[in-house]
This record gives sequence, C-alpha cells and structure tokens, in this order.
Amino acid sequence: MKAAVYEGPRNVTVEEKPDPRIEHPCDAIVKITTTNICGSDLHMYEGRTSFEKGRIFGHENLGQVVEVGSAVRKLKVGMYVVLPFNIACGFCKQCERGLTNYCLTMQPEPSAAGAAYGFADMGPYQGGQAEFLRVPYADFNALRLGEDAEERQTDYVMLADIFPTGYHATEMAGVKPGDQTVIYGAGPVGLMAAYSAVIKGAGRVWVCDFHTDRLRKAEEIGAMPIDMREQDPGEVIKEATLGLGADNGCECVGYQAHDPSGHEDASRTVNGLIENVRFTGCIGVVGVFVPEDPGGREAQLQIGDFEAKGKVPIDWGKLWFKGQKIGTGQAPVKRYNRRLRDLIAGGKAKPSWVVSHELPLDQAPDGYDHFDRRDEGWTKVILHPDGSG
Amino acid sequence: MKAAVYEGPRNVTVEEKPDPRIEHPCDAIVKITTTNICGSDLHMYEGRTSFEKGRIFGHENLGQVVEVGSAVRKLKVGMYVVLPFNIACGFCKQCERGLTNYCLTMQPEPSAAGAAYGFADMGPYQGGQAEFLRVPYADFNALRLGEDAEERQTDYVMLADIFPTGYHATEMAGVKPGDQTVIYGAGPVGLMAAYSAVIKGAGRVWVCDFHTDRLRKAEEIGAMPIDMREQDPGEVIKEATLGLGADNGCECVGYQAHDPSGHEDASRTVNGLIENVRFTGCIGVVGVFVPEDPGGREAQLQIGDFEAKGKVPIDWGKLWFKGQKIGTGQAPVKRYNRRLRDLIAGGKAKPSWVVSHELPLDQAPDGYDHFDRRDEGWTKVILHPDGSG
Amino acid sequence: MKAAVYEGPRNVTVEEKPDPRIEHPCDAIVKITTTNICGSDLHMYEGRTSFEKGRIFGHENLGQVVEVGSAVRKLKVGMYVVLPFNIACGFCKQCERGLTNYCLTMQPEPSAAGAAYGFADMGPYQGGQAEFLRVPYADFNALRLGEDAEERQTDYVMLADIFPTGYHATEMAGVKPGDQTVIYGAGPVGLMAAYSAVIKGAGRVWVCDFHTDRLRKAEEIGAMPIDMREQDPGEVIKEATLGLGADNGCECVGYQAHDPSGHEDASRTVNGLIENVRFTGCIGVVGVFVPEDPGGREAQLQIGDFEAKGKVPIDWGKLWFKGQKIGTGQAPVKRYNRRLRDLIAGGKAKPSWVVSHELPLDQAPDGYDHFDRRDEGWTKVILHPDGSG
Amino acid sequence: MKAAVYEGPRNVTVEEKPDPRIEHPCDAIVKITTTNICGSDLHMYEGRTSFEKGRIFGHENLGQVVEVGSAVRKLKVGMYVVLPFNIACGFCKQCERGLTNYCLTMQPEPSAAGAAYGFADMGPYQGGQAEFLRVPYADFNALRLGEDAEERQTDYVMLADIFPTGYHATEMAGVKPGDQTVIYGAGPVGLMAAYSAVIKGAGRVWVCDFHTDRLRKAEEIGAMPIDMREQDPGEVIKEATLGLGADNGCECVGYQAHDPSGHEDASRTVNGLIENVRFTGCIGVVGVFVPEDPGGREAQLQIGDFEAKGKVPIDWGKLWFKGQKIGTGQAPVKRYNRRLRDLIAGGKAKPSWVVSHELPLDQAPDGYDHFDRRDEGWTKVILHPDGSG
Repeated sequence: MKAAVYEGPRNVTVEEKPDPRIEHPCDAIVKITTTNICGSDLHMYEGRTSFEKGRIFGHENLGQVVEVGSAVRKLKVGMYVVLPFNIACGFCKQCERGLTNYCLTMQPEPSAAGAAYGFADMGPYQGGQAEFLRVPYADFNALRLGEDAEERQTDYVMLADIFPTGYHATEMAGVKPGDQTVIYGAGPVGLMAAYSAVIKGAGRVWVCDFHTDRLRKAEEIGAMPIDMREQDPGEVIKEATLGLGADNGCECVGYQAHDPSGHEDASRTVNGLIENVRFTGCIGVVGVFVPEDPGGREAQLQIGDFEAKGKVPIDWGKLWFKGQKIGTGQAPVKRYNRRLRDLIAGGKAKPSWVVSHELPLDQAPDGYDHFDRRDEGWTKVILHPDGSG
Repeated sequence: MKAAVYEGPRNVTVEEKPDPRIEHPCDAIVKITTTNICGSDLHMYEGRTSFEKGRIFGHENLGQVVEVGSAVRKLKVGMYVVLPFNIACGFCKQCERGLTNYCLTMQPEPSAAGAAYGFADMGPYQGGQAEFLRVPYADFNALRLGEDAEERQTDYVMLADIFPTGYHATEMAGVKPGDQTVIYGAGPVGLMAAYSAVIKGAGRVWVCDFHTDRLRKAEEIGAMPIDMREQDPGEVIKEATLGLGADNGCECVGYQAHDPSGHEDASRTVNGLIENVRFTGCIGVVGVFVPEDPGGREAQLQIGDFEAKGKVPIDWGKLWFKGQKIGTGQAPVKRYNRRLRDLIAGGKAKPSWVVSHELPLDQAPDGYDHFDRRDEGWTKVILHPDGSG
Repeated sequence: MKAAVYEGPRNVTVEEKPDPRIEHPCDAIVKITTTNICGSDLHMYEGRTSFEKGRIFGHENLGQVVEVGSAVRKLKVGMYVVLPFNIACGFCKQCERGLTNYCLTMQPEPSAAGAAYGFADMGPYQGGQAEFLRVPYADFNALRLGEDAEERQTDYVMLADIFPTGYHATEMAGVKPGDQTVIYGAGPVGLMAAYSAVIKGAGRVWVCDFHTDRLRKAEEIGAMPIDMREQDPGEVIKEATLGLGADNGCECVGYQAHDPSGHEDASRTVNGLIENVRFTGCIGVVGVFVPEDPGGREAQLQIGDFEAKGKVPIDWGKLWFKGQKIGTGQAPVKRYNRRLRDLIAGGKAKPSWVVSHELPLDQAPDGYDHFDRRDEGWTKVILHPDGSG
Repeated sequence: MKAAVYEGPRNVTVEEKPDPRIEHPCDAIVKITTTNICGSDLHMYEGRTSFEKGRIFGHENLGQVVEVGSAVRKLKVGMYVVLPFNIACGFCKQCERGLTNYCLTMQPEPSAAGAAYGFADMGPYQGGQAEFLRVPYADFNALRLGEDAEERQTDYVMLADIFPTGYHATEMAGVKPGDQTVIYGAGPVGLMAAYSAVIKGAGRVWVCDFHTDRLRKAEEIGAMPIDMREQDPGEVIKEATLGLGADNGCECVGYQAHDPSGHEDASRTVNGLIENVRFTGCIGVVGVFVPEDPGGREAQLQIGDFEAKGKVPIDWGKLWFKGQKIGTGQAPVKRYNRRLRDLIAGGKAKPSWVVSHELPLDQAPDGYDHFDRRDEGWTKVILHPDGSG
C-alpha cells in the first residue's frame, strides 16, 4: 500500500509499505478514506522529537472496516468508523477510569503511559496517512458512524483528535454558560477549543494569535480575535472584564510557542494565561510540551546554567497567588467523541469549517510543507488516500 | 492591650496597642484566648514580604465574643468562636461561590483578591496575637464552638488555618480511600495534610522532610516518613508502587524550599511531586509562593538572565507528558471548618497532636525565634494572650 | 403603597398597604418596577396552600434601590437590582455551601428551611407585587444590573426565578453538549429549562405539554414540541433514540399535573420521566410538590386507604431497575443568576421571549384570572407597579 | 462439575452440571474457590423473581484462572481473581463511561441494560456457586489479586459485590469526613455501607435494623445501632442533630422491607430516609427494587385500585420540599474494586468481619435455608466449592 513516511527533518515521502494485517483476535483493518495532518505532526516533521525514519505518519483517521479479528463483536465489515488518536486497551487501571489517553497496556515503555498511531514516544504503531490501518482492540478504539458518514467525512474526521482535544481544553478550564474564555492559539486545536466554548454557551471567547487567516476563522464562529502583533491580550481582557481577567483559559500552542519574529519561548503562552485569567480561574493546557526538547535550545539551555535543563520558567508565584488550577495533557478522545458525533449528526456542529485543503495522499509532502510554514490560508489539511474528496 | 508586633526582620516585640472597636454594624470584638504562630508568619518575620513594621501578627485565632455590632445576629457575647484566617464579605462574586479565600470586597487592592488578619498583601487588618481582635462580618467570619470549646482550645484553634489548609491540599489532590499519597513538608501544614489523608481513608501516606522531630510526628498518625537526608522519595515511592508513582501529592513547603544545607530552590518540591506522582495524578499546592520575592536571590536572579525574574523553573514538559493536574493557593477555610469541627467534637480528630509549645503572649519573641530556627522539637507554637494554657 | 393582595381562593385585589421600612441595618428598600406572576403563585391563588389572606403576592421582583440600611456596603440608592426569590442570610451552614434555597436563618420554622417573598410556608415576608419591597441582607440578596437594566427589565426580571429555576432543572439533570433532553411542562419554567438546555449545547430538546400556544413558544427556540393530546412522548422518544430513551429529563409541572381533561395525578410527570429517560440518566424536578395538599383529593385520599395519605405512587421499581438519579427542590437562584445575567447583557440570551402580557399593577386580578385558566396566549404575565412598560 | 441449582421457591440443590468452556477468544475459565450467598439471591430463592429453574446461583465469586481464550492478554493461568458481579463488555456507550452496571452489550434484552452471573433478568449467564465459571471479556471482568489472595479469600471475595455495593451507596449519598450518616438495613450490604462510611471519615454512622446479631456487627466497626423494635430512628437522629436530620442516608434493604412482624411495605425504608435525612441531603439506594413484583401483594395491589400496580407510595412531596437528591441502582463494581482491594492488601480494611459461616458447596441448601430465615447469627454465608476454608 501507499503511505506517507517520515524520512528525516522536513522530509516526508509517499512510498510503498506492506499492508497491515490482523495480529490479534481483537484487531480490525480499516481502509482509510480521510486522514488529517495535525499540528503535532509538525513537531515530528521538523525533527524535534524521537520519531523514527521510515515510520508512517497520521493519527487523525477515518475510514471503512475491511476486516475484523475473530473476537471483534460490534464492528462489521463495511462500517464507517472514526478512530480516536489514542490507542487504548480498555481494561487497564487507567482505561477503566476513562483515562484512555494514558493507557498502561498499549504503551510498551513501563515508565510511560498512552499510545497513538504514528506518534513519537507513543508506542510502535503505524500511522493512518496510508491506504490501510491496523486498529487494535477495535471494538473499543473505533467509533461507529451513521449513514451520513461518507458524505460528511470532513466533519467526522475531526472527532479523531482536534475537536475532542479542543473540547478537552474547555473541560479542564471549566467553561460554563456565560463565562469569558481566552484561548491562546488559533491553529486547528485552538479554533476547536473556541468552537467548543461557543457550543457550551460561553459569554465571550477571545482567541489570541498573529496569523490573520486563522484569526478570521475564529471570527466566523463568533469568537473575538486578538491579533498579538497589534494588541496586548492583557489590556483587551482587562478592559473588558473590569480588571478581573477572563474566567478561564485554554493553551493550544505548546512548547514551540514563539513571538511573531519566530523567537521561541516555551513559557510564553502559559505565563500569558496566568496573567490573563482571573483569581481562582482554571486553565486547560492541550498544546504539546515535552520533557526534553532536542531542538529547543533557546528556551532551555540558558536556564540550564541554573540546573534547569528541560525546565520552563513559569510565573509560579503569580499562579499560586491567584489560586488558579491547571489541567494538562493529551485528550481522552473517547470521553467526548460520541456526544460531539451526535452534534455533527444533528446538524448542530460543523467542524469542517477549519479545513482549507483536501489533497490526495500523493500530495502529502506538499501539504506538510505549506502547513509547516504556516503559509497564508493553510489552516487545516486533509488527505484522502482513496482518492476521494 | 498587649500585642505581638513586627519591628523588622527577625524582630518581634510585645507592646501596648489601642484596643480594637466596632467599626461597622456587622463587626464583633473577640477576646483572644489562643492564637498560633504559623509557618507563613515566618516569611514575614524574616523580612521576605512587604509586611509593615508596627503591625500585629496572627491569623490563627480563637476566643470569646465580647462585643457585637448592631447588625450581628448569630453571634452572642460569651460564645467561643474560631476565626478562619481569611476575612471575607460573604456576598461578592467569589464569596457566593465559596471562594472566601479570594474575596473581592475585603481586599482593598483592586488587582488582588483575598484578605487575612495580620498578613502581608492581604489587606490592612490587624492580627490576633493580641488580647483582642476586630472581626469584620462576624456572622460570616466566625465559627461557633460548643460547650467543650474552652477545654479543647488547642484542638479547635487548628480550624483557623492549618487543619483546613492541609485538608484543602488533599482536596485539590483528590485523595480518596485506598489512594497512595505523597506529601512534601512535615511542618504543621504538611502534618495536617497527612492527617487529612489518613482521615479520608488513604491507603498509604508518605511525608518527606529532613527534620527528625517532625517526621516522628508524621509517624504518630500512621504516615510513613521519608527522611530526605537519607532516602530519595522517588526511589521509595517507585519501589512501593510498581514504578507507577503515588496517586496524588501535596506541596506543603512553599517558595523557601531548600535542601538540608539551606540552599534555597523554589522549584524543588513541585518538581519532586511532578516526578513522584503518577500519570494523570493530581497535585495540591498550599505552600506559599509569591509573585516577587525580595529575598529569594538564589532561585530567581540567576534565571533572571533569561528574562525569568520572579519565575520558577518548573518541569513543565514532564508535567504535561504525564497529564497531571495542579491546584494552588490559600485554602477557603469556611469550606471545611464545620466538618472538621464536628470531627473534633465527636472525638474522631485531635489535631493538637502537632503542638509542641504553649506560651503566654509575652514569650512570643522566644516562640518566633525557636520556630524560625526549626529548633529540634519546636513543631508548633501556641500563644495564650489571656494567660491560660 | 398599592399591592396585590390574596383575599381567598381565586380572589386577588389591589389595595393600600403600609410602605415597607428598614428593619435591620442590612436591609434595603427597593422600588419595584417589574414583577411577574409565577406559576407557583397559582397554587396559592387557587387556595391549595396555607398562604394567608391579606398577604402580598410576588417573588419575581426587579426594581431600583431607594434606601439602604447602615450596614449595606455594595448597594447604592439608584441602582437597578433583580432579587432572587429565595431570601437568604448568607452565613448559615446551608448558605455558606451555596444552598440559599434552604437557608436556616430566614425561615422561622425550625423544622423547615428556605424563605421567599410572598410565598406559602417560606417565612413571613411580603411579596413584591407592590410599589415597594423590603429586601433583607440586601448586599447578599440583590444582584446588581448594568446600564441597560431599565430598558431590558423584561429580560432581567426572569433572573429572579424562572430562568435560574429552569437552568437548575438542567443542572440536576446533568445536561451536556450533545445530550437528548426531555422536558415535561411548557409553562414558563419548562420553557426556561428548554432554553437552558439549548444554551448548553443539547443535541435535541423535547418539550411535552398540551397547550398549543406554549408548545409554539418552545418551537421558537429550537426545541421539539410533543403535544400529548396527539402524541405519546414514550413513542416519539423511543423511536428517535433507537429505543434507549432520552439522556436526561426535567420535571417542570409539579403536583397539580393533570391530563388534558383536568384529571389530576401528581405522579403523572415523574413516572413519565422515569419511563422516557434512559438507564442511568438523571432527572431534575423543579415543579412544586407539597408534603400535604389540602386540595389534592383525587391523587391522595384513595391511596390513603393504604396509609398513603400525602404520598405519590411512584414507579420506584422501574426507577431503581434503570439506575436513575433524581434531584429535587427549589432552585438556589444565586448559583446561576450572575452567569445568566451576563448572557443577557452580552446579547446571548433573551428570556423575555416567553412574555405574553405586560400589565399595570391595577390589572393584577385580570392577569391572575387569565393565567390561572391557562387562557390561550397567556404564557407569562408581567406587572409594572410604576406604570412603565 | 457440581453446582448449586435453583429448583423452585425455597428449593436449591447441589447437582452435576456440564463444565463451562471457552466460547469466545476473550473468555476465561475460573476455578471457584470462594463464592458467597447474597441477600439478593434470596429474592430469587423465594421465588419472587423470574429466575429459571435449573439455573446455577452465585454472583459473588473468587477463584483461580485455569484457562484463557486466545485474545486474553492480562490474565494468566494460575492467577487468583475476584469477579465483579456485573458482566460487562468494556466498549459500549455505558461501559466506556464506567457504567458497567448497565452494559448494553451483555444484556440480550434490548429494553434492558446490565448483566450478572446467575441473576434474574440480567442475561443468561450461569452463576459461580459451582466448581468452575466462564468469565466473558475476562481481561475487563476480572480483578487480579496479589500473593496474599489464597489466604485472604474471605476478605477479597467481598470485592465481588457487597463491599463495592455498600461503598456505592455512600458515594451516591455523598458521604464525606465529618458527616452524620444513617443506614437502613444491617444485612451484609448495610454493614458494608456503614464500613465504607467509617473508612471515609464519617463523624457518626447509625445503622437501623431489628436483628440483634446484625446490629452487634455494626457496633463492632464503630457504628451506632438503632434497634427499630425499641427505638424510632427519627427521634434518635433528631435529638442528635439539633433537629436537622442526618447529612445523608443509605437504603440497603430493598422492596421486601417489612416491619418486625413481617408485614411488607416497599416504601418503608425510603420514606424513613426522606424523613430522617436533612434538607438538601443525598440518599443512595442500593437495596433491590423491582418494576413488577410477583409476590408483593400487600404493598402493591391495594394501591392498584388507583392505577398504581407496581408503584410504591413515596413521600414525594416531602422529598421535594426538602430538596433531597436520590441515586439508585446496582453498583458499578469496577469503579471501586481496585481501591478497596488496595485497602485490604494494605491491612486497612477487613470486610470478612461480616462472615458468620464458611461451608462446603454441598451444604449450600442449608446455607440458603438459614440465611433466608435470618436465623440468629447467620449474617453472611461463604461457600468453598474446592473444599477449602
């Protein structure tokens, strides 16, 4: 089969790979019809992770079941399914509490937790930017779609990661009706966090970024853009809230946060949120941070003189003084994907509004290149390995 | 009246001050019979805060009502009451949600929140290490005690701060029956966090410190001491938990954390907890951290070369990778003080086990001196301005 | 002053009553500009409660502060305020947990809890269907409104009761984005429950009733009406949910539930919800039920042969078999009124869509008569004692 | 193999049945070493359910894995496991939320939910009062035990049902440290609810019953017995709580509730709790209630004259007036069994204190007979099909 393969920093190629096959009675094989390039793929694409050369990318996957193992009960050949990016067993201590984002079974490294398709440090699983994908514990790890699945793939595929991830940010932030919410990052996940806050009845949602095209997307769903090249979020929010600050905040950028000139500072967005969220407010952090960053020289080595290698200089005293709460980490997609699917099915949510490009699998290299450069207008790229779209 | 007054770094004297009087119809005047020296008083005592010379110390107060304003309804002259260290109005946006720790009314500084008796940056209120104390919004800010109040003052006075504060740490950490909980700090608050975890049915409770006398106190209530001069908490906990880490953790030290040799590092305990708590575990931070530390040269200036003044080098990437949650800040005492009072009244809790010394008010300077030096055996000092005890 | 006074079953008159005055330093006097007739007023109007003759009706009140007691701090003369129907002290065991609906201080009867303006069994307080109203503990019991208060009174007055009460039903029912919610009752509270579910992002909201005008109101906000004269809610919902039932349900009718022919059965709506909500779903009951109903002969005496006087024949076995949860009681208005106010102020909610009639106070008798008869088109009646509107 | 088989009302025999075998790749076969008779078995034993003649009883099972299907990953032959009474798939909409008590996959009846071993209306699964048991989805449905499993079987077997079920009652009731909790029923489940409340730090726990031997068991763990033949729970609790009532309550009796003379009234315990729990308190109901009771003539037919067949006359008006919350249904054992196992393993819980008799499987008929008669001293009966004990 054809697959999008990592060949080194900023080098992805589409090449032949062996078809996946059933390896365990609970496996299923899915023919991928829609698969996204994610912002977190870019960390790997840029060589800022331990992702191995020769491995297939892709953790936002949707397709049609073509084969099931002997133990599979719910899934049937021909069904359309969308696959949470987390791969989970369903029966470990974490999964049974709904913490499928930190499964202890599917992660082979005993000191770690959590697994994913085509993802650095998240187990050996191949990605879905390919014609076929093996899905372990398929009854647990696949969400079945209804009759409208084929025609609305660009909406449903968002259930694999970014819609639940944005929603998770708002859950950890405790967004409720009437709240004033500030979101750092207008990439696909930030936009989904804003969308989730709007769906939950937030009173006002600000989205901070400096990419005009992305801020415009935020405006389309009723959020208020703050262009950080021109405006200081702190001043905008302070004025709008009688000096109190936003009720809650979402971090949707991660460790490669940088200023408009490209200067990286991993503490930039978190410290911004500590400043802009009110006393006792909650902050949900879904942007990716890493224990050790092979590329993050600027933010980390300098502090390293003070035994701070791998650490981030957080405004901890201010955080504590304000009594804020912080939730972090990857989203447990299964906690939210059913309800978000139902919103799409009922016509109450249409997350495909973030999509800018639909490409055949062959053009994956182009897609990576443009998306990585944040080229104007490339907000979200979808690949169709089956040539559809 | 006599009062313990701050006169500069490591200098407290007992001197004459004017008696407090009713200033508002909701005020009451309380004759203080028991008042504690708190670990957070030491930050002020050492000159590491903006606490003003000439002000009275004391935010852990218990006594007898001697006068009430015309609007006071529930309190009557003669009643024994214990006073939460937080001073709160009861009717602002924060108080009506139970966030009396961040009251917007009683804190005069519009960019801050929360007030307390005799506390730096928490409003102009005098402390209770004195013969009398003015209590604003007294029906809201005083907890009535029963007939055993006088004889069990050393237990009930712990409801003013350290028992609810330790309990709050375990609430933010989400301690439940059967959990394995690690606590950094065996000072009075850390001991109360351990005690609260035990009361809640935790399976195992570790307390990390390097003061032998304090670790012994932890052992008395069934917690397991980890003497950090001899043992690495990480190794002890890893071995006991099959490598998974503790279920949750409590930070009860604060920004003056240091190693046994006295070398300060404000990130020491928080990073220890991030390391020793398992994936997705929660951490409650009640140790005091400050936005700007006038004295914390070591931990902060060095990092300041990288624009990090006032920031703390947190293992943020590891925190995120593990998907942990962190709650911070002062405790909302009123959320817990009734149920903890009932445990004391029913003989199910006896927090006075931490007390090492009961002194008359006159000996406050001595008490501060010994407690500040962490002299062997000085775990908790109580003052009796009425000469009782 | 003029006031709407109860003179016996189905007999309300507008007559002269003494002006209220400051009785306690925490009181305020409010000049009422907008006050609603509530469905729960009708229980009293019909003589089905212990409401005393000569007492003033009215617990949904909005107006302008004209006088404040010496202890009042936040409220100032001239401010517009909306008053939660619950009267609460702010400092009892219940109020400090946010349970202002069951205040122990303001209810004089020691075996009861909770107080309200002009309400049977809820303390001696006069109602606000009058020119002026005394507001106890005014800093706690009044919500301040912004500059748009005067012109949007018909929206903001809904914060006194029915908007928070409908919202409370959805809170107890646990309504979340994507949920399918069924509501019994399309009276003002049922409509507000439906509106709250829509604001929270519910996927589908059904409203069951048999008054065409009210069902049409439900349709206006995107809910799906079920006219029980023509449709069986059970069948509609079963078909729409693959037989599983609704995710959650709200009871907004109360003990005078009856069929289209007027035959009363207090168990009708609750048993309907037990049937129509899925296994493990939650049900929020805000419709009024009473321990002893002087008028409910039909539903209660017959069962009384089996020592069942005052009891309601609930499908308890089915409830248990389905593992459902039920929350009941009056709403704690203060828990929600700020966030709902902010939604109105920001233009995201406009609850005045339920209003059918605005009358001067003099026409209160007419308003009661039509509303009580459920006359076509009389969905919600507002009175303006100041002649505005 | 030998098994305890239902042969009709009050008739159980031990007879030969075919050995179970692996029917699905996720199955395991467990050799049962300890299996309890449960109070809910008695409903079936007495012929008050639809339980089929010829079926094997037993849903509280512990034993050793002797065979695993090809898809089983975590379980290995030789391991000791305790089996939650609920049989669940792990991947349906309910299971993925942790609602394994209402699994949609393992219950064949589409209008129902939830499955169990040897239980009426809970699927076709055989019980474990036998030498061997087939365990579906064994990685999900078995909890592994440590090295002390064999010697502490009488403790660990309580994790199959009654310890988690009692704990679940206290969870639904919201028991927290310092609370005053009232429990109806001193049978094994009621005793476990009391034990769970004590573990959670409740201030006072009352247990109401009229069997002296059971009340004595309650006293052994520090609960306060109320012998309903001599005391009115309402008076005892009112006096102890200044008239306010208990903070929360647990129903651990079910639909066969009766007075000391044997007169049944299914509403007896629930109405008692509504009366004795305070305003806004929560009540957890784990005693079994059934939609239609073939034997409950007294409580149900009489009301049936008022179309109340199968209904229970609940004090609904009082419930609502007090704003109480009620949770119901079978326990989701997997939500609690790990933490309770850890308490047993760490020596902090010893639920075997309820056991009165350990019998070989052959004596099951005797065990049923005595337990059903509530013979003095027969509080909990354990069977050992392997002859141990």
